[in-house]
Amino acid sequence: MQICCSAGLLLISCLFLVPSASGVLQLPSPWGFRCDATKGICIKKERTGVDTLQTLNRCKLNCDRKGVLWPYPKSVSLGSDTVEFIPTNVTKNIIAHPQVESLLLEAMQIFQRNLHMYHPKFVENEAAWAGPWDPETLAHKLHIDITVTGQDTRLTLDTDESYRLDVVTSDSQTTAQIAAQTFFGARHALETLSQLVEYEENRETLMILRSVNIHDEPAFKYRGILLDTSRNFFTVKEIERTLDAMAANKLNTFHWHITDSHSFPMHLANLPKMTYYGAYSSSQIYYPSDIRNIVHYGRVRGIRVLPEFDAPAHVGNGWQWAEQQGLGKLAVCVNREPWQSYCVEPPCGQLNLANPKMYDVLGQIYNGMVDLFSPIDLFHYGGDEVNLNCWNTTDEIVNWMNEQGNGLTEDAYYNQWSIFQEKSRQLFTDANNKQEVPGIIWTSHLTEAGRADQYLSNSKYIIQIWTTDSDPLIGELLDKKFRVIFSNYDHWYLDCGVGAWVGEGNNWCSPYKGWQAVYDNSPLKIAANLTTTYDPALILGGEAALWSEQVDGTSLDSRLWPRGAALAERLWSNPSNNWEPAETRFIHHRQRLVQRGIQADRIQPQWCHQNEGLCYL
Amino acid sequence: MQICCSAGLLLISCLFLVPSASGVLQLPSPWGFRCDATKGICIKKERTGVDTLQTLNRCKLNCDRKGVLWPYPKSVSLGSDTVEFIPTNVTKNIIAHPQVESLLLEAMQIFQRNLHMYHPKFVENEAAWAGPWDPETLAHKLHIDITVTGQDTRLTLDTDESYRLDVVTSDSQTTAQIAAQTFFGARHALETLSQLVEYEENRETLMILRSVNIHDEPAFKYRGILLDTSRNFFTVKEIERTLDAMAANKLNTFHWHITDSHSFPMHLANLPKMTYYGAYSSSQIYYPSDIRNIVHYGRVRGIRVLPEFDAPAHVGNGWQWAEQQGLGKLAVCVNREPWQSYCVEPPCGQLNLANPKMYDVLGQIYNGMVDLFSPIDLFHYGGDEVNLNCWNTTDEIVNWMNEQGNGLTEDAYYNQWSIFQEKSRQLFTDANNKQEVPGIIWTSHLTEAGRADQYLSNSKYIIQIWTTDSDPLIGELLDKKFRVIFSNYDHWYLDCGVGAWVGEGNNWCSPYKGWQAVYDNSPLKIAANLTTTYDPALILGGEAALWSEQVDGTSLDSRLWPRGAALAERLWSNPSNNWEPAETRFIHHRQRLVQRGIQADRIQPQWCHQNEGLCYL
Repeated sequence: MQICCSAGLLLISCLFLVPSASGVLQLPSPWGFRCDATKGICIKKERTGVDTLQTLNRCKLNCDRKGVLWPYPKSVSLGSDTVEFIPTNVTKNIIAHPQVESLLLEAMQIFQRNLHMYHPKFVENEAAWAGPWDPETLAHKLHIDITVTGQDTRLTLDTDESYRLDVVTSDSQTTAQIAAQTFFGARHALETLSQLVEYEENRETLMILRSVNIHDEPAFKYRGILLDTSRNFFTVKEIERTLDAMAANKLNTFHWHITDSHSFPMHLANLPKMTYYGAYSSSQIYYPSDIRNIVHYGRVRGIRVLPEFDAPAHVGNGWQWAEQQGLGKLAVCVNREPWQSYCVEPPCGQLNLANPKMYDVLGQIYNGMVDLFSPIDLFHYGGDEVNLNCWNTTDEIVNWMNEQGNGLTEDAYYNQWSIFQEKSRQLFTDANNKQEVPGIIWTSHLTEAGRADQYLSNSKYIIQIWTTDSDPLIGELLDKKFRVIFSNYDHWYLDCGVGAWVGEGNNWCSPYKGWQAVYDNSPLKIAANLTTTYDPALILGGEAALWSEQVDGTSLDSRLWPRGAALAERLWSNPSNNWEPAETRFIHHRQRLVQRGIQADRIQPQWCHQNEGLCYL
Repeated sequence: MQICCSAGLLLISCLFLVPSASGVLQLPSPWGFRCDATKGICIKKERTGVDTLQTLNRCKLNCDRKGVLWPYPKSVSLGSDTVEFIPTNVTKNIIAHPQVESLLLEAMQIFQRNLHMYHPKFVENEAAWAGPWDPETLAHKLHIDITVTGQDTRLTLDTDESYRLDVVTSDSQTTAQIAAQTFFGARHALETLSQLVEYEENRETLMILRSVNIHDEPAFKYRGILLDTSRNFFTVKEIERTLDAMAANKLNTFHWHITDSHSFPMHLANLPKMTYYGAYSSSQIYYPSDIRNIVHYGRVRGIRVLPEFDAPAHVGNGWQWAEQQGLGKLAVCVNREPWQSYCVEPPCGQLNLANPKMYDVLGQIYNGMVDLFSPIDLFHYGGDEVNLNCWNTTDEIVNWMNEQGNGLTEDAYYNQWSIFQEKSRQLFTDANNKQEVPGIIWTSHLTEAGRADQYLSNSKYIIQIWTTDSDPLIGELLDKKFRVIFSNYDHWYLDCGVGAWVGEGNNWCSPYKGWQAVYDNSPLKIAANLTTTYDPALILGGEAALWSEQVDGTSLDSRLWPRGAALAERLWSNPSNNWEPAETRFIHHRQRLVQRGIQADRIQPQWCHQNEGLCYL
């Protein structure tokens, strides 16, 4: 009995074993799974002699009509049978323009790496392990045919991310046909294809559905994750892992809040003193090669790396070098105390509107950033949380305001801030080889009721909303034809709900946003509650934000994932349902992220994964 | 300029460098630190020519009068100077009974490993790296003299954990003299010694305070962390990492809630079917060698591994094998639906009081556990959250109750439960070679107002309190002379504050318990609010609980740490102050845990660590 099970293909009859001499029972377990097709869930059963129970992975592949696809496609039809293959036996044929083909070759490598990670023994020791396979499994090939018609490799707000994916199987080969207008559609198809595959533990192979037809496109064009690398630093490896997880969820924008008042980790070859003074340490700097690698790492995963240079507030450390060099103060209120009077959190700092040299340096920063993040098709100017008291208690600025005849009213300062914003936009556009690209800006005093269209042009600026889902401002901005991105903190701020870091109690935006709250945050429904006349095309999408006051590499993954996946399905599929019908698929998807090396947080006891539908309220 | 800095000892004059041809500035940074002795914090300053600024690590070693010691010792005096040495140059001399010496040799290895982990280059590549050291540093020796007078190697509730540690330095040697009554005191001294050492980044050495006098002992005898390995499974490596972190905080009890109704991962050689039916999978089992290794791993780190076998509720999966074997049902309501009627969370399950064979198997389980966890000086019987409706809707039990003439009142069931508890205690004592040891039991219906002394003996049972800090029951239990352990969920349940796992919203014991709330939870103050006549010796200590419905290895460290360290100082030092004066020391200690490979959560921006005292409210 033991012999037949320790080598070669496992037979069903081997599954029922008695205790060995050592008292250790042989596994696999006495349990198996059977699909309840009406409910779309897999039911755990005890094996009884020769039966038709499946492994959980096999059962889940197509028990739900959406399979284990996450985010689920626009249109999907899954066959009932599977075929087994080994992860090394994959071939491809690509028809595409050379520059697209080059990206697709990298995307294929990522696809193959993902397949390998599904298989526990391949990850550990691919070369040395011969496997227990029969000749048929060994010979079965997964062949991927990719056709991309377009030749543009830039990801803009107009890029077509749709794709078709058709899987057919003959005796010895499964063929996946992928057709897309762009590289980005095709790489999404590869991601979907990788979710038609699972590990078959009883046979130590992979398995794939024999026959599948999918066509798919996202509901929203902008699907983002914000990471703040200024409050705390993240290594390049940690950022790459974040991009891996985003790719697995078809998120397409890594919004890099790279600097802030706390630290300046972005090394600029033309302004090296910014990091010299502003980095937390010499090992906590993004050098130009790091940044260029990250931009490329994102691109081949279908992700734009969107740089934010937050100004005129949220600056500070890093700017101290200028005074010694005779440039005067470029930033004021840097680390000023008591911080409560001059900013929203320690440390304070704002750009010095009265010093024209500030604009010279800002232009140099933009030059440096264009060089690092090229090509830039979208840019984030930040622009939130200016503290007027900082400026209004700084002699140099007060004198300048008076000299200019502006006066010192709030409106006078807002006006100067909007002039700063317009100058910044011009400096950036000059730096970006005169190419105008849409600018994003946070909701702020400048966008408050009645102000946005006074200070900002709706053709030039996209507004990122971080207030709540009931804020009437959202209706006003849409009525004024501003394009918007949703990051309302009451659902999509992933840093909320831990202990406070100034004072005691819990942090400002507590409580914690569970995955259900993330999933149920529908931009279209929010908008419909606040205005009746808006054009849905103005809603570009949304973004979950991980501000990093209280997170670094030790808990990055578990704060972002799997909640970022809940965001992803909202933005890709825009389901009409709430989280409930998605739950078992979500839990399984979390397991997949873990298989791929993402330290995604546990949402439920493992018992719930093995006993689907029973962890209800 | 560059040459003098790229090899050999760094000179102060090398710290001020200009941009190199590549535009990359050489570091270290323009910043240094100076101690403000009145406040006990290190102030960040810009370097100005030849100055006396220190690195942050150097400054922190003795700027606060408690240094960076965590938990802080009962009595401590730190010298002002440091001396540099390299982590390989450590010698020892041990005077102790052979069985104690054997443990001390292992503790010394752990000490040396910790020193190595402080040094970034030693961790990576110890053998190959020659270092930049001068002959004096290379020659300087850290010599450790340990004297332990007692010979007992068991950790009981009477064990003396105190120690003396005196450090003196001559030209070529720093001598640390450690004197303790027991192994446990001596290993705590080694832990304290390792906290007198920091990495000196400018010289790539370690440094230690030249002169120190400490005597120290814990305020409470029981200082625990609970980990639940049934709701979700944790690997042996993850448990060992938890023990490493506990050791760094002088916590002495790893309360292993090893089984529950969800899964049964504890492999018993005499009952292998418990895991065969009850483990989540064949790779999620603790085999006997795993458990014995963990018990030993804890012991050499000063930690008792306290097993809990929770009964008569919180059982279920794993017990299904018995019916097939003709033993009848040993557990009832297993996975019964709707779960809300039969237990507090899915899945349900309770032992079958009506089946005498249940006691046979329970006795076998205890036999197996004594074999695995030996020597056992303390045992946890669980005993919480019995659902009377489960028993009272199970025909077999209802009939049995009626046949016995007990009736079906609540009190009748409580009485049977207390009889079960007494039988369990006898079975365990028999299994434990007739050696009676204190039993711990959770607060439950059995301990509610007026009941505890009716059902339980205060000489045999210690009560673990998991209600709130204002529960009058605490006063009653103390007045009735029960020994107690505090785990009040409103401060010491570390699983609270994430999204719900049944239904939506956040989990039952939300909000999240920040480190400040953990630190400020004083058992003595709580008791004093609820009774005026209690004997403080009845309060054995406390424990933070990590119930694992929503955590597995991906976020284990960040849920437990650094909050577990806040618990540790409360229980070891029992400070009269609240968290505020401890904050900067706490943040630094968190960094130390990370250096030692613990993925402790970030509490604040790194800016706060470098700008002590400025992240206040």
